[in-house]
Amino acid sequence: MGWEPGIVSALMRLGVRLSESEEKDVFVDSITLFVTLLCGCIIIGHLLEENRWINESITALIIGLCTGGIILLISGGKYSRILEFDEELFFIYLLPPIIFNAGFQVKKKHFFRNFMTIMLFGAFGTLVSFSVISFGAKEFFEKMNIGFLDIQDYLALGAIFSATDSVCTLQVLNQDETPFLYSVVFGEGVVNDATSVVLFNAIQKFDLSQLDSKIAWQFVGHFVTLFISSTLLGMIVGLLSAYIIKKLYFGMHSTDREVALMMLMAYLSYVMAELFDLSGILTVFFCGIVMSHYTWHNITDKSQTTTKHTFATLSFIAETFIFLYVGMDALDIEKWRFVSDSPGKSVGVSTVLLSLVMLGRAAFVFPLSFLSNCTSKSKNNKIDLKQQVTIWWAGLMRGAVSMALAYNKFTRYGHTQQPGNAMMITSTITVVLFSTVVFGLLTKPLVRWLLPSSSHHSHGDSSEPSSPKSSYTLPLIAGEGDSEGRPNGNTIPRPTSLRMLLETPGNCVHYYWRKFDDAFMRPVFGGRGFGRDISGSPSSSPDEMSLH
Amino acid sequence: MGWEPGIVSALMRLGVRLSESEEKDVFVDSITLFVTLLCGCIIIGHLLEENRWINESITALIIGLCTGGIILLISGGKYSRILEFDEELFFIYLLPPIIFNAGFQVKKKHFFRNFMTIMLFGAFGTLVSFSVISFGAKEFFEKMNIGFLDIQDYLALGAIFSATDSVCTLQVLNQDETPFLYSVVFGEGVVNDATSVVLFNAIQKFDLSQLDSKIAWQFVGHFVTLFISSTLLGMIVGLLSAYIIKKLYFGMHSTDREVALMMLMAYLSYVMAELFDLSGILTVFFCGIVMSHYTWHNITDKSQTTTKHTFATLSFIAETFIFLYVGMDALDIEKWRFVSDSPGKSVGVSTVLLSLVMLGRAAFVFPLSFLSNCTSKSKNNKIDLKQQVTIWWAGLMRGAVSMALAYNKFTRYGHTQQPGNAMMITSTITVVLFSTVVFGLLTKPLVRWLLPSSSHHSHGDSSEPSSPKSSYTLPLIAGEGDSEGRPNGNTIPRPTSLRMLLETPGNCVHYYWRKFDDAFMRPVFGGRGFGRDISGSPSSSPDEMSLH
Repeated sequence: MGWEPGIVSALMRLGVRLSESEEKDVFVDSITLFVTLLCGCIIIGHLLEENRWINESITALIIGLCTGGIILLISGGKYSRILEFDEELFFIYLLPPIIFNAGFQVKKKHFFRNFMTIMLFGAFGTLVSFSVISFGAKEFFEKMNIGFLDIQDYLALGAIFSATDSVCTLQVLNQDETPFLYSVVFGEGVVNDATSVVLFNAIQKFDLSQLDSKIAWQFVGHFVTLFISSTLLGMIVGLLSAYIIKKLYFGMHSTDREVALMMLMAYLSYVMAELFDLSGILTVFFCGIVMSHYTWHNITDKSQTTTKHTFATLSFIAETFIFLYVGMDALDIEKWRFVSDSPGKSVGVSTVLLSLVMLGRAAFVFPLSFLSNCTSKSKNNKIDLKQQVTIWWAGLMRGAVSMALAYNKFTRYGHTQQPGNAMMITSTITVVLFSTVVFGLLTKPLVRWLLPSSSHHSHGDSSEPSSPKSSYTLPLIAGEGDSEGRPNGNTIPRPTSLRMLLETPGNCVHYYWRKFDDAFMRPVFGGRGFGRDISGSPSSSPDEMSLH
Repeated sequence: MGWEPGIVSALMRLGVRLSESEEKDVFVDSITLFVTLLCGCIIIGHLLEENRWINESITALIIGLCTGGIILLISGGKYSRILEFDEELFFIYLLPPIIFNAGFQVKKKHFFRNFMTIMLFGAFGTLVSFSVISFGAKEFFEKMNIGFLDIQDYLALGAIFSATDSVCTLQVLNQDETPFLYSVVFGEGVVNDATSVVLFNAIQKFDLSQLDSKIAWQFVGHFVTLFISSTLLGMIVGLLSAYIIKKLYFGMHSTDREVALMMLMAYLSYVMAELFDLSGILTVFFCGIVMSHYTWHNITDKSQTTTKHTFATLSFIAETFIFLYVGMDALDIEKWRFVSDSPGKSVGVSTVLLSLVMLGRAAFVFPLSFLSNCTSKSKNNKIDLKQQVTIWWAGLMRGAVSMALAYNKFTRYGHTQQPGNAMMITSTITVVLFSTVVFGLLTKPLVRWLLPSSSHHSHGDSSEPSSPKSSYTLPLIAGEGDSEGRPNGNTIPRPTSLRMLLETPGNCVHYYWRKFDDAFMRPVFGGRGFGRDISGSPSSSPDEMSLH
């Protein structure tokens, strides 16, 4: 490998430099090492792509662990990480590109068709999981005589361990083969991230030591307001970007300015949400959806290709960076020193938390699937047991969001001084490492066993015209991801009977939304068929390309 | 303007927040404000594109000044800037994308054909300018009774004010209409930046108070070593990226990984140079050239479009950010308080420096042009007076590099405590603002007057087959930017006589380089015709697209 000498020399320099403690040089050293490791992760990840077990997250995590070990050896057991885990770095720079790209590349057709299922799993499911973990942690930890946690800490633990990390599963699921499963796992992941962060912030803010119904209702009200206003802000910024690019750039396109404006306005939506104490994750996700529906159709072909791949690349780099960092941070000696006095207790805590994570997820995936199956009349919409297990499994991994929230709650200025807090941090690291590596290694074989790619589980897919539902659903949602285009919306048939309207209120809403979209939104904000006067091959949506 | 309410509310919040001094919120506020202003600059810059006087640098500078003024009013005269001017931010994050993009998009054909002229103006010219400014400043400032500067300070001033900023001129010059002028101004700008930074660092390092011949020779040796090793490092990293992508990705392309790897390795070359105390500017510039010559031909069509525009966009954003920042920083009240006691002296210092800048540049542009005209036998290669004036004018602007070096020399931790240092900082700001705004406003009319676009000054251009030089230069340099492609290099004719070889040693070197390139480099590292097995339309170089 050509890059290994670079790592070794950088590490050797690092060992020398740390004793000299020249701050600026250590900074450049760290960046060099990190960039080198990122390159290594990409190359090795590419080489291992066909491997049966490993995926890119695990590669980055293991490379991070190894590097941490080497630094630990070179520095004589003093250091394992070279950059402090910085919440600011994570929430301000690394998370926004990942979530924005998620919104930008999601197959909107499937996302909105399964919107209710996604919200049920993502928002309500996370609340169930949160309750199970909080309550379970309180019961077990009090029995284990870990008495330094108060009610707020238990609730925070619930929120921390409700944040799933479905990146690993999404790398295995195929968006084309299992569109329903993909959109549910994907959508649930995003809504879940947002829900956990919002929950966590709400817990930090409210004094929940005397929980009465008034405070509970305030809490719920706060939660709902945050949810709706964050979504609205994202949509407004997205529409603004579409409007600006459509109005200003008419007949006078400039690729670099278009790309720059899209990148900056996407980021603007996130920091504005943070500024107004909203959920930046939700805001930037919906900004991504609106941008891919309107703005993306107003820019040149070159800009379309560039934005599509740039956003995916930035997201990819940020993801790799996070896993690499979590791996390097795991060996930090300072945290482990506190828990080395009571290793049994530490292992117990991690085991309890891991079991609660599995239990908490089972507590909503199977009942909600059963509920969903009962209300669904079409046989096509039923979620069979194998799919339920896949959904359950997809949310068992815990990742960077859990880490960031745990650091926020249990450390001050990056250091873990209290033994109790140190134990919570090490337990979080243990759960994250174990779930990502062990569950992650099992994901590829499990998914292949549960969902053999030969039998296409095209659940609810529009390619099955046999069901009564899809006979009119198809035209309603066509034109979003299909190649035929839809220059004017007059070809949409109206629902023909009241019975059909009552049976499928979601589709009815969708139908009127499409009418509104064609009559008002697209002419104003652009979109497919309205964006540019440049003719040529019909442009497809950014969600039509695969992620890698 | 849709974004104005955003600015106003952000500013109002900022005014409130600063008194509360919540550090994290101020940080998010600053980012929001900066991103909003960047969007504003892009939109206004686009609207003013057809304007006779204004260009994007001036737009950003003026918006920065206005915002600084508004913040000054809101904060009651306490603050004008919201982010400290941070050398680290500038040299680690903002400068690399600009310089890399310069190397990536430069028309290599013209750059290498005029290589000697560029080096003469860029390296030797900068040394002349440095000597004139250092010596002149010493003479004048000692007469003006500003007695707090030592010899090292005068030399530093020489290096600081030798760093030109040709962004403004390049926005006006047309790469296709005046390829010779463009490549000279552009190439000189890059070499000049590198030379000034290397000079500045060398001055900081060497004890030049007792200047004898031994130290002078050590200084020259250090300078040359730095220059060569920086160039080599950039080329090695560039070739490594080409090799990795060619070997690993054969038949199995992944757009996001390719783009990520190119971005990361380009940045890696810069931070490695900084790590080894080399000139990152030179390294990343040559890495850009090598990547556009080899690596870029090894990746997919989509990756090619994406990298081309992503690098250009990042560079564009970084440039706008710098000018915006310089504008906001200029009104910072703290610095001006120190010089308000002696306004006359401050104006005097700025006037002297500005005159020395103009004199120092004239002192090498006109003599070197004369020298170049004497040695050049072809009439086509002569630089006429109008072109000389254009070259002279193009390097009069002073920009972000001067600012960053001045801050490095005359401040400690972002604060200017000593009155003498404060005066040097304010003088630098005055020179930067005056030269960018006043000279910048005059550039468009001046260039249009000196070089009317109807009479194509295609100096040394290959489209003129009348000259004896171009009759064999054309095939030697063809295939680099021409659309015909050159799958195998066997069609290149050899120079037919010894006379021609002696007359044009540069072209001879170029000829053997091309043979070596075709026989060894391209088969190993890829490149046009060797990169991919994917057939299709012949891919052109990234330097063929216009920058905006």
